[in-house]
Amino acid sequence: MKTITLRLFVGIILAVELFCVYNAFSQEVSMTPNDTMAIIHRRKSVRTYTDKPVSVDLLEILVKAGMAAPTAADKRPWAFVVITQRDVLDRLAEGLEYGKMLKNAQAAIAVCGIPEESLPGISQMYWVQDCSAATQNILLAAESKNLGAVWLGIYPENDRIDFVRSVLSIPSNVVPLNVISIGYPAGLERPKDKYDPDKIHWNKW
Amino acid sequence: MKTITLRLFVGIILAVELFCVYNAFSQEVSMTPNDTMAIIHRRKSVRTYTDKPVSVDLLEILVKAGMAAPTAADKRPWAFVVITQRDVLDRLAEGLEYGKMLKNAQAAIAVCGIPEESLPGISQMYWVQDCSAATQNILLAAESKNLGAVWLGIYPENDRIDFVRSVLSIPSNVVPLNVISIGYPAGLERPKDKYDPDKIHWNKW
Repeated sequence: MKTITLRLFVGIILAVELFCVYNAFSQEVSMTPNDTMAIIHRRKSVRTYTDKPVSVDLLEILVKAGMAAPTAADKRPWAFVVITQRDVLDRLAEGLEYGKMLKNAQAAIAVCGIPEESLPGISQMYWVQDCSAATQNILLAAESKNLGAVWLGIYPENDRIDFVRSVLSIPSNVVPLNVISIGYPAGLERPKDKYDPDKIHWNKW
Repeated sequence: MKTITLRLFVGIILAVELFCVYNAFSQEVSMTPNDTMAIIHRRKSVRTYTDKPVSVDLLEILVKAGMAAPTAADKRPWAFVVITQRDVLDRLAEGLEYGKMLKNAQAAIAVCGIPEESLPGISQMYWVQDCSAATQNILLAAESKNLGAVWLGIYPENDRIDFVRSVLSIPSNVVPLNVISIGYPAGLERPKDKYDPDKIHWNKW
């Protein structure tokens, strides 16, 4: 009887332990991809995508990440055009010199600045920095959600600004800074190691 | 004898199990603060710091995160002046209108652009976007390392550019975009919820 009790005890402990090991392992798997430093260094420009659709919920998560960026004097001089329609993506792909990947993208986000909502005078130009910070948040959020994305520069190229404005009906007081092409990565692109210690100066140049 | 073997067996299993539970628990604790989406939304402008020094190793981690940002045509037209000396931080604090917190900061990073290393013509201006993306990486890396930081705009304000150039001996072909003030947070600042659904447009403005 004593031996049977012990065996039962051992059996229960073994089951609990197995669960613990499984749990630790699955946490390990889910933890690594979302660690901030890992995501910052794993982010890459992804231009090839699978045909898996990107959900509206995920796109909203990306835009929310964008709006968490800091802005000069907390002015938030930004707006986001989220594109999911095939024909709109195709028109952008056809008209943007470096935007051919939009033909296979499942979605895109045009990050736009509203200069008049920023600070007055020369400081109005902070909208570029504010919207760039928002863009980087979106790219990191995409990487953390296993999406692939690439930043297509629009501003300050006037022909690209005019074209994106016309396709997306963006008013003339709003400036598209970029178009972010988005999809699930086909797995071709790898992150680059761009670290260069010569770019760091200590206390003075 | 059989019972002693079983007891030994149970003892070993219990020890392994305790380790598993401890391990899973410490992973849980270390995982949550570094989740990318959590860090993006937890990042805030931190202007009040404790007197705990910031290590050179951590500052290098921040700059490495900066250099992982994307740049137009992969030009990487940037450089980073990392400031740890008290007298240099104090001089910046005294000369920058909105930089008083540098008096209590333990470190700072001046993110600089090198326009001539970017694309030609009007596209040279992409250096602002490139360096802003690098800055956002640094701010998120700081948050993920339990540091507090705030982005102090320098470019495009000419008087601030001249002042930072003179304090840090930055050459005239290099433009300080900002100074990031860094320290361990005193715990006063809270993140803002800046989400505004009116800022999102779907497929057209």
